[in-house]
Amino acid sequence: MLRTRLTERLGLRHPIIGAPMAFAAGGRLAAAISEAGAFGLIGGGYGDADWLRREFDVAGNRPVGCGFITWSLRRQPAILDVALARNPKAIFLSFDDPAPFAARIKNRGVLLICQIQTRKDALRALDCGADIIVAQGSEAGGHGEIRGTFSLIPEIADVIANQSPDALLCAAGGVGDGRGIAAALMLGADGVVVGSRFWASEEATVSARMHAVAVGATGDDTIRSQLMDMARKLDWPSRYTARVLRNQFIKRWQGREEELRAAADEVALQYQRAWTEGNPDESNTFVGEVVGLIHQIEPVGKIIERMVGDAARLIDHAGRHLNGIGST
Amino acid sequence: MLRTRLTERLGLRHPIIGAPMAFAAGGRLAAAISEAGAFGLIGGGYGDADWLRREFDVAGNRPVGCGFITWSLRRQPAILDVALARNPKAIFLSFDDPAPFAARIKNRGVLLICQIQTRKDALRALDCGADIIVAQGSEAGGHGEIRGTFSLIPEIADVIANQSPDALLCAAGGVGDGRGIAAALMLGADGVVVGSRFWASEEATVSARMHAVAVGATGDDTIRSQLMDMARKLDWPSRYTARVLRNQFIKRWQGREEELRAAADEVALQYQRAWTEGNPDESNTFVGEVVGLIHQIEPVGKIIERMVGDAARLIDHAGRHLNGIGST
Repeated sequence: MLRTRLTERLGLRHPIIGAPMAFAAGGRLAAAISEAGAFGLIGGGYGDADWLRREFDVAGNRPVGCGFITWSLRRQPAILDVALARNPKAIFLSFDDPAPFAARIKNRGVLLICQIQTRKDALRALDCGADIIVAQGSEAGGHGEIRGTFSLIPEIADVIANQSPDALLCAAGGVGDGRGIAAALMLGADGVVVGSRFWASEEATVSARMHAVAVGATGDDTIRSQLMDMARKLDWPSRYTARVLRNQFIKRWQGREEELRAAADEVALQYQRAWTEGNPDESNTFVGEVVGLIHQIEPVGKIIERMVGDAARLIDHAGRHLNGIGST
Repeated sequence: MLRTRLTERLGLRHPIIGAPMAFAAGGRLAAAISEAGAFGLIGGGYGDADWLRREFDVAGNRPVGCGFITWSLRRQPAILDVALARNPKAIFLSFDDPAPFAARIKNRGVLLICQIQTRKDALRALDCGADIIVAQGSEAGGHGEIRGTFSLIPEIADVIANQSPDALLCAAGGVGDGRGIAAALMLGADGVVVGSRFWASEEATVSARMHAVAVGATGDDTIRSQLMDMARKLDWPSRYTARVLRNQFIKRWQGREEELRAAADEVALQYQRAWTEGNPDESNTFVGEVVGLIHQIEPVGKIIERMVGDAARLIDHAGRHLNGIGST
């Protein structure tokens, strides 16, 4: 059992939060994560109110939260009320300034989780009263930025210790097994946010073909790109790119951004069709570099048990054998 | 005391290797690192034989090693003999295929350390008989690639375990304090390679002005770029970029690569002059994202003592308080 400030504060058995991945994290995944003793969130993504209501229904009375893409939420702020009406345990805001929404969330007594990618973002999130800072490194799947998890975590831990010592810190980007949990705690985090490893679970809303290519991929096979957002005509702020598996779509368009923009209407139709079909060649598999540690699609409860069991054993072993730790 | 396979195999007191940083890691720094119980290496860099002989003289009879930039060594392979003539404890090869030199090194009974940036590189290095694999993540200062330390380490640990279980693994890129050492060990490494934190020591060959800007910088202030190599007319393979502090030089030329190439002769003179003067505005400060954890220039022995002391305390504390670990 790994007890940290995060498990205490949120009443969890395990210091793990499931990333609110757009599309992949529906009510089923969020509920399964919470049921297993961690904390699951529905990925509110780009804000489809009907979808969101349905997924909260699926989660039932399990204590789940909801995540939003902050710049997208700014364009349709009412969707936040759809989530707040379900009494979520937390709202998780990623990508862009949380200020326009922080007060509404905190005034409802709902935990505010802010995912950040830089030191500067962290300072802003703390100013907004974030209860939990998720420091997301570049190895993460999906959208993010360029700072690496390994040095971002301790730097943000120091910022929090100096500035808002009651705020909690979670590490995101590259945490896929017990080694990642143990390492994140050593770096100063109170817990971890797990994306790709839960994406690769039976409860995630992911096509079987995308699951299959991810299981066969190594960490060398991912890339950060903006091509997918161009093809989807999504208006992401330019600082963000998304990590995906390299595929035919990426090969075709890389270095031809202007042409892609010019052909966007047609490409968008093709991309959307491929996405609906779960075609991993012509639409993208959104996973992080940690995909190189994922060899099987499993139930999320089993994944969580193994991760925390391994982490506890690693820490226990290292503590007892301080004079003989390492890989053997 | 942190005992690992690395300390055993190399006869060290601490599982730390000093990165053979070109220019910054001379005989004085390498000797000080080895004297403190870790393992220091001279940065053979782009291969100046006179400089290298002088720095080995400075290191005296302390057990040090020597690092080379592999693609550069291929152009002047004789410089390897200059190093081998001094009976180095190890030769550390980074950047490009180690195959042309592996046999010459191993046949002399000298340890072969190969720094890699991808899973594919690791497989190649193991095929070449590397005794130690250094998996270098993107947050590292100076040259490198894009994979993040946090997920690269466990993936390479698995590769080694499956393929060449006797090879050792060190983590590089983002290790600047005891938290980084403890985390690297949890991720499956036998030790760490420390660059920036030793660069920021009294024994490193670094200008006072560059030291000063680094101490004032945060991890948000670095960038990976190829502009410095264009300005120095260094022929780096295109896969490698170098991490430096953003400065006036970067601001001036970013997005103007073609103009820089066209003006390369003139710019090279200016850059070289600024570098000789230790001017951090017009030539670059080569440090990693971990610069955000560095607040003081200190003797390397003091840095090492604190790093290992903190790491041991962290691991010991986590092991004893498994039911209450984390940031407080």
